[in-house]
Order: sequence, then structure tokens, then C-alpha cells
Amino acid sequence: MTAFHKVTEADLAYFRSLLPGRVFSGDEISADYDHDEMTEYGHYMPEAVLQVLSSREVSAVLSYCNEHDIPVTPRGAGTGLCGGCVAVHGGIVLSTEKMKKVLEVDTNNMTATVEPGVLLMEFPKALEGTGLFYPPDPGEKTATMGGNAMTNAGGMRAVKYGVTRDYILGMEVVLADGSVIELGGKTVKTSSGYSLIDLMIGSEGTLGFLTKLTVRLVPEPKVNLSLLIPFDDLDACIGAVPRVLACGCDPTAVEFMEREVITCAETYLGKQFPDTGADAYLLVRLDGPSRDALAPAVDALTDLVLGIGARDVLLADTDERKESIWNARGAFLEAIKGSTPAMDECDVVVPRDAIPAFVRRSVAIGKELGVRILSFGHAGDGNLHIYVCRDDMTNEEWKEKVTSAMDRLYDEAKALHGEVSGEHGIGHAKQAYLRDSVGGRQISLMRGIKAVFDPKGILNPGKVAEGG
Amino acid sequence: MTAFHKVTEADLAYFRSLLPGRVFSGDEISADYDHDEMTEYGHYMPEAVLQVLSSREVSAVLSYCNEHDIPVTPRGAGTGLCGGCVAVHGGIVLSTEKMKKVLEVDTNNMTATVEPGVLLMEFPKALEGTGLFYPPDPGEKTATMGGNAMTNAGGMRAVKYGVTRDYILGMEVVLADGSVIELGGKTVKTSSGYSLIDLMIGSEGTLGFLTKLTVRLVPEPKVNLSLLIPFDDLDACIGAVPRVLACGCDPTAVEFMEREVITCAETYLGKQFPDTGADAYLLVRLDGPSRDALAPAVDALTDLVLGIGARDVLLADTDERKESIWNARGAFLEAIKGSTPAMDECDVVVPRDAIPAFVRRSVAIGKELGVRILSFGHAGDGNLHIYVCRDDMTNEEWKEKVTSAMDRLYDEAKALHGEVSGEHGIGHAKQAYLRDSVGGRQISLMRGIKAVFDPKGILNPGKVAEGG
Repeated sequence: MTAFHKVTEADLAYFRSLLPGRVFSGDEISADYDHDEMTEYGHYMPEAVLQVLSSREVSAVLSYCNEHDIPVTPRGAGTGLCGGCVAVHGGIVLSTEKMKKVLEVDTNNMTATVEPGVLLMEFPKALEGTGLFYPPDPGEKTATMGGNAMTNAGGMRAVKYGVTRDYILGMEVVLADGSVIELGGKTVKTSSGYSLIDLMIGSEGTLGFLTKLTVRLVPEPKVNLSLLIPFDDLDACIGAVPRVLACGCDPTAVEFMEREVITCAETYLGKQFPDTGADAYLLVRLDGPSRDALAPAVDALTDLVLGIGARDVLLADTDERKESIWNARGAFLEAIKGSTPAMDECDVVVPRDAIPAFVRRSVAIGKELGVRILSFGHAGDGNLHIYVCRDDMTNEEWKEKVTSAMDRLYDEAKALHGEVSGEHGIGHAKQAYLRDSVGGRQISLMRGIKAVFDPKGILNPGKVAEGG
Repeated sequence: MTAFHKVTEADLAYFRSLLPGRVFSGDEISADYDHDEMTEYGHYMPEAVLQVLSSREVSAVLSYCNEHDIPVTPRGAGTGLCGGCVAVHGGIVLSTEKMKKVLEVDTNNMTATVEPGVLLMEFPKALEGTGLFYPPDPGEKTATMGGNAMTNAGGMRAVKYGVTRDYILGMEVVLADGSVIELGGKTVKTSSGYSLIDLMIGSEGTLGFLTKLTVRLVPEPKVNLSLLIPFDDLDACIGAVPRVLACGCDPTAVEFMEREVITCAETYLGKQFPDTGADAYLLVRLDGPSRDALAPAVDALTDLVLGIGARDVLLADTDERKESIWNARGAFLEAIKGSTPAMDECDVVVPRDAIPAFVRRSVAIGKELGVRILSFGHAGDGNLHIYVCRDDMTNEEWKEKVTSAMDRLYDEAKALHGEVSGEHGIGHAKQAYLRDSVGGRQISLMRGIKAVFDPKGILNPGKVAEGG
């Protein structure tokens, strides 16, 4: 890798001439920029933060940094969970926070074209009245759509609709040398050379800087309802997941949650969850054209779960009831964070029929090591979020326990033919686990690809396949 | 690129020791191996044909060829349409025709794992009784599943279900140096480094040799029916497509066909099509849980098309009727081939709302140049198959007219923000159009990627991004 240069006053002057009022250095930089949502992985203050508005500006900045060997870390809303948007090698952070325009909603082709900084929570406003919706639904609604694309975020509705990758049709990307390329467009199928767009999706800003995104929309389902299903114990709850998936009810989401996590969320939100009498819950969402059309699915699901240990089936079909449940679900990560001075997480994905085995193993690991391990997640697609909590451990104890727990969780996932990350990505925090999972040959292919796109390695250095 | 070596007697002796009875050279090689389904793009006889049975054998062959600078052209059933499986640089053809085992159908995870030589028409037998099906449905049923993966084949049902890429979860691939890698698996979402599997899909055998494929299955829809919709003229017919897509009927397939193509198919098959009184037809397929559940979609579609110029709506809900229509549709390519001594084709894809404009332009180009241009295709996903027919032209006339027609068709597609190939790929025949469409920067990225996977360039040389 190139020896990087520090950002000089001359560099700053050049950046200020390009981006008047949108260049920050030294004390002007907010402390927010030195981390993402996982402070456990360290604090790295960039030498400068630049807010860009257009691909022309991005091209000018990258072309300059490439020539001057200055590392560039792309950043959206900073909501990542593995340090992907953190400037571990210093240099500049290039922020999309001001690129927030929805450029077009094309109802004929059922597409929308957006700037990368549009927040997931803001995007639905642009679709109001069109009858169309954008299915990807990551839990973190303040994330940017660009960040979602660059990590291939998944979310709740992946069981039925797939992940972010499945909804990206086109991208405008600035390469490390400043050249601007258009990948894909509004066509819904293609077989026109290597799929550079699929390579870019999930590359965490290491291969190019995303400046425009065209996504596919689908007709909005007219009705949705959620079923909260309490079980006496975690084992029965998680064991029901493969049966739910096979019962023909075509769920949009199948989430699981333990009482302890729900209690954290109640404390965090200051709001009661509709039911806390059971040890563990499944939360199933169904979408369809009408309430009547969903009736057979509700019946099939109810009959099934009551026969395999569910205490009850609580139907949430009012907006208020649905919100109280899904808001709690959306707050789990913050709630767990609030319950412990530090934590680490893993985001493994396993084949769907291996979910019960994996959750059972994670519980056993917690017991064996004497650490509090909480989990929740997208049971319906095999993607679990597992949190190891520090609680009152000393620093030394914590380092030892968390390393041991993480190593064992990743080993279990690998043994079950799982993968390192379902949707959060690799960043700089998960590189050793990626290498262990895919092996040296695939890492060398990834590094080769990186060198093709970014020969001097200025784009988001120290991430994904580069370290470890 | 490496200077390739000719296959010697010593090489053949080594191959014969590895693959007893499955090595063919000189006169032993059937003439079938010197072309694919488009003889227009030339005949190239390989120096040897090797039939492999396992990744171990593929690894041994590739490792040897890499060391000895012998080009290797992967080949499935040879049903491609752009010369992708043809040995344009000589060397060996490595054939998957004997790797035909369905290795596993995993009903819990709704996946199947197959060898690459399984034919698309054979695969459904392995799923009988499971209630599961594999949605990709390319017209050419004698193609292999491996070939479909390596070209990202699309097919009729892409409107509703997506293309082959959307159903591939895992691959075992042998790299040019003989190393064997596993990509993906049975997990349904992942964000674990660069998506090498998506890079491999559609790479036409230039990055690795596919030896195992894990595909995603979905619950089989219980009922399907087809509607054949005659229109007085092509313009009204193709103009109806965007309206059909927007009417909420959620079609599985929307195909369009002209009378002239249907007549070719009747002659070719020796069977009558249910209706030939109209100039042009839409063929719409609907899938659903029951006949009743589909009734609103049938009504909406019928009301719509009768209001915008359709003569009638012919419902095909018996197996016999459906077969007579879809068998004709499946025979279009062969039927057109049978109607002319030579032809060329393009397989462009345009945004869905640009379909009418593109079809109108192709008709106009045919008239202006005085050549017979026939088209049919996947109107619902913007992917048209356009055929330029030689008929009774002299060789000189033909060369001039076909070049001119193709150049103009690709120019029109580009102007409408289309792409070079919707599903057939690039092979060696479409390289100049690919370069013109994506530009030199993307071609250089693709070549860089090729060099990472295959530094000596032995795998399917002269294809995709390499020439042109």
C-alpha cells in the first residue's frame, strides 16, 4: 500500500476552494466523526471532514487525493456497526450528509433515483400517492440509502422481499482516480459483461464513491398485519421458526425476541410492550391485497403455532398496536447499548434451518463463559444479532471474555455453514473473521479486485479484505 | 495475453490418464463442438474435447493447462447465442455434459444443489412432490443450469420472479490455477466482503469453471393461466405493455409476438396456433394460489386491454391450450432460423416504458434498409429478441445490411438507456457493442478483474471484455 500523506494547509486551502464552507479541520470537526455506532471498535479522528454536493465535487476531491496520497473515508449517517465509515488511517472523511435529494420517482418504470445521503426514514415521503414502495427495511431508519447500498443492508422484510442488492438497478460511482462511471440504469435484467454494480454493492466504499442510486420499487401491499406469538421458552420459540416458514403463510418478516431484550426496550423507550409474560416471542408480519386475502395465512399460522407450544397469538391490526410492537423492535439495539457500559456484537447469518441450533449454542456459550449474551433478529432469514455485554466486568476480564465469546460464536456459525455478516458488513472490526470464514484464496481475489479499482489504496483504507 | 501453446500428443496422453475414455481429439471430435446455436458467428474447432465428472478432475485439467499455456473453453449444452462456448483461440473444450447429477433437494432450506450439466428441462423432475419450484425459465430448455448461471439467463418468468442471478445462493468454482473455492452457500442474505459470487454469475466462464450450484427454490404457485390477447396492429399491441404492467395484475410473464413469427412457428412445428387472425399478440401469464384468487387480475386485465384496442381476450386454462401456445412461443427462435438461410440477432434490454419506442424503431430500420426484421420477446421486462434475416441476399449485400442494421439497433437501444444484452451475454460476437455501450473505463475494470482471476488468460480467452 502507498505511504499516505498527512493533510497539509495547502491541501485544506485547495479543498476550501472547491467546497466553500464545507471543509472542516482540527477543532472544527465534531467528535461524532471519530466513530460509528460501535464505539467498542475505537475512535479515529479524521484530519478533515469534507461535505460534498455533487459527483463533480467528489471527482475533484478524489482525483486530488489520489494524486497526493491522501486517504479518503466515505461516510453517510455514521450508523454502521463495524467501523466501516471511520478513518482508521486518518486523511479525510468525505460525507454525503448534504446529498439528500430524491432526484426522480419514475412511476412508469417503477424506479426512483436518489442522492446517496437520503435517509431511509425520509424516502417514503417521496413515494406518497404513487402506490409504490421500497421494500428494504433495515432497523436503523436514520441510515442513508447510500450506506445501505454500500453494505447491502438487509432488514426486517428480507424474508419476503430480499435485501438492498435486490432493489438496486443503477449507480453513478466516482472511482479513486476521479473518473465517473454509470453502472446499470433502469433496465430490470442484464447480461452485459461482469456485474460491476453487484461488485460495488456491499463493497463498503472501498471500490468507489457512490453519488447516485436508482432503485426498483414495487406496488405497495394494501394491507399488513402483525402477529405477536409468545412462547414459554426460547427453545420452543426459535424451534418454531422453520415450521412457520414452511407453513405456506408467506411471511414478510419473522423476528424473534427474548423477554430480557423487550424489558431493556421498555426501559429505554419508557413504554410498555403489549405482552411481557412469556420468555420469548416470535413477531410475524403478513402483507397482502386485503384483510380477507390474508385470512387463510393467519389461520394456518395460528393453528401451527398453537400446536407447537405457543401460549397465544396476539393479532396487531391497528396502527397503534403495530407501532407499539415495531417501535420496540426498532429500539432493541439502542436499548441493549443502554443496559451495559460496553458491548460487542456479531451479525452472522446461517442457513434457515440452522437458526435453532445457533441460538441454542449462543445461549450455552454465554452460560459457559459467564457473560450476558442477548440476541434478537431476523429469524426468518437466518440472520441473528448477538450481543455480548460487558456489564460490571473489569477491562481485563472483558477483553478476555469478549474475545473468547466472539471467537466461539463465529466458529459455531462457520460449523453451521454460515457467513460472517448478514447485513452489517466487515468494516475494520470483522476482518479477521472474514478471512477465517472465506480463506486466503478469496481474500487474495478481493485484494486483487481492490487494486484494480483503487491502485493506490486511498479509498477507505484498512477495511473489508485489506487488513486482518 | 500469454502466447498459447498448441495441444501436443504429450498433453493428450496426460489428459487421457486423468479422464480415461473422455478425451477426444482430431477426427474424434463431433462437428457440434465448433459452434453454438448461432453459426453466423463462425466455426472454431477445438484441438481437444474433455468431458469432466468432478471438481477434482477440473482442478487437475486447469492446473495443467495453466502451467502449459493451453486455452480452456468451458461448455455446457452449447445452446448459447453469442459464441461464448466456442474455442476461438483453439485449445481444449472442457465440457460439463456428463456432470448431470442433482446432488440434493433441501426442503427445509428450500434449496437444491446440482452439478452444472443438469439440463433445465430435467431439473423439475427432481422437485416433484416437494411443492417447490425453480422460477427461472429461459426459452431454451435443453440449456444447462450451469450455462444459465454463467450467462445470467432470464427467461419468461422474470417479470414476476427475477432472473437466474436472483436464485443462485452458492457455487463451487475452480479457478484458472486449479484452486477450488466455495462461494456463498445456503444462506439467503450476506454482507461478507466483495460479492465474488455475483461477479462469477454472468461471467461466461472467463473467471472460473463452475462445478456445483446451489439454487433457491420457492413454493410452487398452485394455479396458472395464460391469456392470449390479439391486437389489430403491432403498434397498439406493444403500446399496451406499460399499461398491462401498471394495471395491478402482477403478471408472471408478458410476451409479445407478431403474426409473421407465429406463422413461422406453425410451419416449423406443423401445428396450428389457436388464433392467427390478428397482426400482433400479447401473451400474459398469471400465477396464484387458486383460480378464484386470480379472478380480479383477469378482470382488470381484460377490462384494460379491451379498452385500448385489443380484439379479444382468449383465456387458456387447460393444459392442452396452454401447451399449444407456449410450445409455439418456445419454438420461435428455431422457426425463424428455419425461415432464412442466415440471420443475426440482438438481445437488447431497455427500460420497460421504452419498449414501444424500441420496437417501432426496429420496424422502421427494417423498412429503411429493406431487410426483414422479426422480433419477439419478453416485453414485460424490456428484453427484446430482434432477428435480422438474410433471405435471398447475396453474401456481399447481407454483410453490408446486417452490419448496418445491427449498428443501428444497438445505437437505438443505447439512446433509450438500454443495455447490450438482457440475457444472452456477450461471448465473442457482441464485444464491440459492449465496449461501445459501457465505455473504455468499464472495459478496463473488467479486464483488470479478469487478470486477477486468470493471470495467464487461459479461461475462455477472447470473450466478454477481452477483445473488441
